Amino acid sequence: MNAASVRIIPLGGISDVTKNMYVYEYYEGANLKDILIVDCGVGFPRGSELGVDLIIPDVTYLKDKTDKIRAILLTHGHEDHISALPFHYKAMGSPPVYSSKLTSHLVEQKFEETGQKLKVTQISYNKPYQFGVFNVQFIHTTHSIPDPMHVFIKTPIGNFYHGPDFKFDLTPPYGPPPDFSAITRAGDAGILCMLSDCLGSEREGSTQSESTIGATFDELISSTKGMFLMTTFSSNISRVRQCAEAAIKYNRKIVFLGRSMRQNMELSRAIGYFPVKQRFLLRENQIKSTPPKQLCVIAAGSQGQFGSALSKISEGRNKFIKIQKGDRVLFSSDPIPGNEEEVNGVIEKLYMMGADVIYPSIQEQLHTSGHGNQEELKLLMRLTRPKYLFPIGGEVRHQRQYLKLAQDCGFAESQVFTPRDGQTIVFNNSGTASYGENVDVKSLYVDSYGVGEAGNPVIRDRQTLGKEGIVVAIVPVSEGQGPTPTPQVVSKGFTFADGEDKTILQAKKLIELTLSAHKGSPISKPGLTQEIIRVLEKYFDSQMGRKPLICVEVITM
Amino acid sequence: MNAASVRIIPLGGISDVTKNMYVYEYYEGANLKDILIVDCGVGFPRGSELGVDLIIPDVTYLKDKTDKIRAILLTHGHEDHISALPFHYKAMGSPPVYSSKLTSHLVEQKFEETGQKLKVTQISYNKPYQFGVFNVQFIHTTHSIPDPMHVFIKTPIGNFYHGPDFKFDLTPPYGPPPDFSAITRAGDAGILCMLSDCLGSEREGSTQSESTIGATFDELISSTKGMFLMTTFSSNISRVRQCAEAAIKYNRKIVFLGRSMRQNMELSRAIGYFPVKQRFLLRENQIKSTPPKQLCVIAAGSQGQFGSALSKISEGRNKFIKIQKGDRVLFSSDPIPGNEEEVNGVIEKLYMMGADVIYPSIQEQLHTSGHGNQEELKLLMRLTRPKYLFPIGGEVRHQRQYLKLAQDCGFAESQVFTPRDGQTIVFNNSGTASYGENVDVKSLYVDSYGVGEAGNPVIRDRQTLGKEGIVVAIVPVSEGQGPTPTPQVVSKGFTFADGEDKTILQAKKLIELTLSAHKGSPISKPGLTQEIIRVLEKYFDSQMGRKPLICVEVITM
Repeated sequence: MNAASVRIIPLGGISDVTKNMYVYEYYEGANLKDILIVDCGVGFPRGSELGVDLIIPDVTYLKDKTDKIRAILLTHGHEDHISALPFHYKAMGSPPVYSSKLTSHLVEQKFEETGQKLKVTQISYNKPYQFGVFNVQFIHTTHSIPDPMHVFIKTPIGNFYHGPDFKFDLTPPYGPPPDFSAITRAGDAGILCMLSDCLGSEREGSTQSESTIGATFDELISSTKGMFLMTTFSSNISRVRQCAEAAIKYNRKIVFLGRSMRQNMELSRAIGYFPVKQRFLLRENQIKSTPPKQLCVIAAGSQGQFGSALSKISEGRNKFIKIQKGDRVLFSSDPIPGNEEEVNGVIEKLYMMGADVIYPSIQEQLHTSGHGNQEELKLLMRLTRPKYLFPIGGEVRHQRQYLKLAQDCGFAESQVFTPRDGQTIVFNNSGTASYGENVDVKSLYVDSYGVGEAGNPVIRDRQTLGKEGIVVAIVPVSEGQGPTPTPQVVSKGFTFADGEDKTILQAKKLIELTLSAHKGSPISKPGLTQEIIRVLEKYFDSQMGRKPLICVEVITM
Repeated sequence: MNAASVRIIPLGGISDVTKNMYVYEYYEGANLKDILIVDCGVGFPRGSELGVDLIIPDVTYLKDKTDKIRAILLTHGHEDHISALPFHYKAMGSPPVYSSKLTSHLVEQKFEETGQKLKVTQISYNKPYQFGVFNVQFIHTTHSIPDPMHVFIKTPIGNFYHGPDFKFDLTPPYGPPPDFSAITRAGDAGILCMLSDCLGSEREGSTQSESTIGATFDELISSTKGMFLMTTFSSNISRVRQCAEAAIKYNRKIVFLGRSMRQNMELSRAIGYFPVKQRFLLRENQIKSTPPKQLCVIAAGSQGQFGSALSKISEGRNKFIKIQKGDRVLFSSDPIPGNEEEVNGVIEKLYMMGADVIYPSIQEQLHTSGHGNQEELKLLMRLTRPKYLFPIGGEVRHQRQYLKLAQDCGFAESQVFTPRDGQTIVFNNSGTASYGENVDVKSLYVDSYGVGEAGNPVIRDRQTLGKEGIVVAIVPVSEGQGPTPTPQVVSKGFTFADGEDKTILQAKKLIELTLSAHKGSPISKPGLTQEIIRVLEKYFDSQMGRKPLICVEVITM
């Protein structure tokens, strides 16, 4: 038998918090035997990726290996771990999918929404599963969504601990605490490499328990004179449940607003994760007939997203809700970096409508992270005692901080892998590891129309269009001897200063000059187009210091 | 004599941290007698204000009152307090300008840069100035730039305390502490209304002294093996000086990088605010001949700005500096909300080059705010004991928190003014105050080409262009009987999915259908243009869920 090895490919790219997708490959010599995939999530566009709704991993690498894929495991129900699956599932040969209870329902719902059907197998904890050569055991942990898990993966050449997004909540409000016993047993069995969440590596100490937020809800709801309105991530079922239970205690009824919030809470209620009686729930159109003092509205839109339920309320565009003095709005969430401006905008509008607005930067214990802080990350290292570490789910800065924590725990720098995009890690049967051959890791952009390749000139065009505007020149040329219409120049989003007319006039003159220079000596259409683009680029840049997108259409009469 | 009154107009708008400009008007009956202006600063565009470099107040309101303007006072040298002046100075009738030492030099430099000349009068503290009816005294405070001041303004109907950006630094590294004695005397004299910085109103306790950062520099520089590189706001002269002095202590020489950093430090050195001997300073081209261990580079670009000195280094585009292992880069600044993505990007690139990167979220005492926290804001209230309060220099959320602090100090809500944009405050001679007539407060946009009005459709166009792209249709129509060229349709930044060609083809067909519907029954050019726009809008929206900017040019052959 040839020497066996395992290769890990971070196919969703690394040094990114989102777009999680990890491929475990088992080789005998050069022969690929089995593939196990963990997670298949989306990423979210940066501000500069204009007009993009979602980013998904490119799975081209897997296309000719689908017969080797033994299973896809989904570690929890957040978008950045499950939502790329409907885009790629068929292309990956429709392998069996495994996950925990809530996750399985969320994934099945995602498939339904795109007109597909999927039956996910709900896993049992503390029971071995065999996927090809991979012997897998699922371990219960805690996070900002119910039913998150870690995965202990045994292979003939060594064991792996796949530990994505987690915190160690010792007193979760619902459900059991993390299964420290299973984690420790995995450590006892010996771990060659642990992949660990590293997002919290910059924060000292430990995270607050989710339970601490319950007391805050109680206090803030009991002292609210008018309507109480709470917003948070709509996947944070336990947060919503804590708020709803406190509201019911003070004789308020619950209204869920926003599609994602309503959908998640309906699903949670159906599967027993939100055991609240129907009589405590109202529909949106029952708000007006209920005194504000008896209302608790739980709305999506904690990131200030345009068009979200909360954003609409802040703009007076919800026909059932009018914010008034005495109402209180609670943001039980931090803005994700990049969203501050939107969140602030919504806070300001709510203030101006008379609401008392409460958010984490003015009051503590309104939100707690789902990602473990330094002490929790180090504790996981101590419990698992792996030979190698691979920090995942963070940016480069988080990986570097994780490395420092690992060094504090006695790891050498050479034991911590921080691959770049496309790099793979190979573990051989002597228990050593090194970076392997690179794999082409790309991202795909998704907008309302479809899926396209990233790096597409369209995004560059949009950036130029957004910052500099566009100048379109329409240049009629005649083949015969008849009179030719004069060139037309149109600009959009170009300059708001006076004198645009003068600029356009001058541009037209320059085009005419270019045309007359070629009178008699014919030039090809593409040649003429290029020349006019050059002339106009030079003019706008040197005269005005601007670089609009220039688009020239030569029309033969 | 008719009853006198004072009106305050926040002409730069309120509920914004930047673009500070306050107009004090003194009336006798309906007759405007004297105007005093405090500050004239720029604002910075939000992410959605694409392609805008700066925002400045519109001073149209003052145009027919320039003969009443007695003086312009500039409270400190930050851009958001001084940099709109060169745009408006002549239009305001070139009134005399007063400020403290550093501020005066910075303003004069701004004027030189725009080819103008201005001589600012340097004020003396504890000495009265008379500007029309306004009797003014300047009070030394502390902030994140040297020479900041508050202004005590006496008028026949009552006194005003103008207290913009400040902190109470009890142990400033250079220069005297705030003049508590002068502040208290102003309070003793009786204050009708205090305008106070409110930006720090969400933060508990007091700010750290600027001096505490010095010890951090010392520790971090002494333990750096390679080059030491520091970035901060280039106006924070004391921060830079503390860093330079620590570097010199450990036998390093200083290099300033970036135009703003170099310019500010040269000016500071010239006026005695940066007393460092020439032999400790190097030029950029001396870097290569100096061992890294003997270098301290102080660079502009702490906000990750594209094209800044630090951003260029992080991209390997500075020909004298190559970051290597052992080098340390220190961010002595927090990202301003909205800049997180850019700052993170630079941090990541520096990490990947091998630098040890240190920034406030992983280590304390790297930066301290220039704006007082809650205890400092309350202390100013206690020292001045005004009848009315008007929180300035913050967003609505900061004003609301300031209101809560004021209530803690015994003020009633009716004593705290939080006007909306355009609202003015009128103080009459019986010592009461109320909101006055609104003034039209607009913003002007500045880009590399010139100045234009905000709210201009150009910005809306850019937003659409950036998010949705553009579709341009060129529609030739013939007046005679000859053949007409077919319509052309061009799109940019529109969709990155496959099938763009098919879409364009279908759009052309729809235009031809529209044209043939009008064959025989003539339609005006604008009428036809509008109709084609409607047809295309409907097509792209209903078929693809997209709303590109649509631009139709009908050309008569």
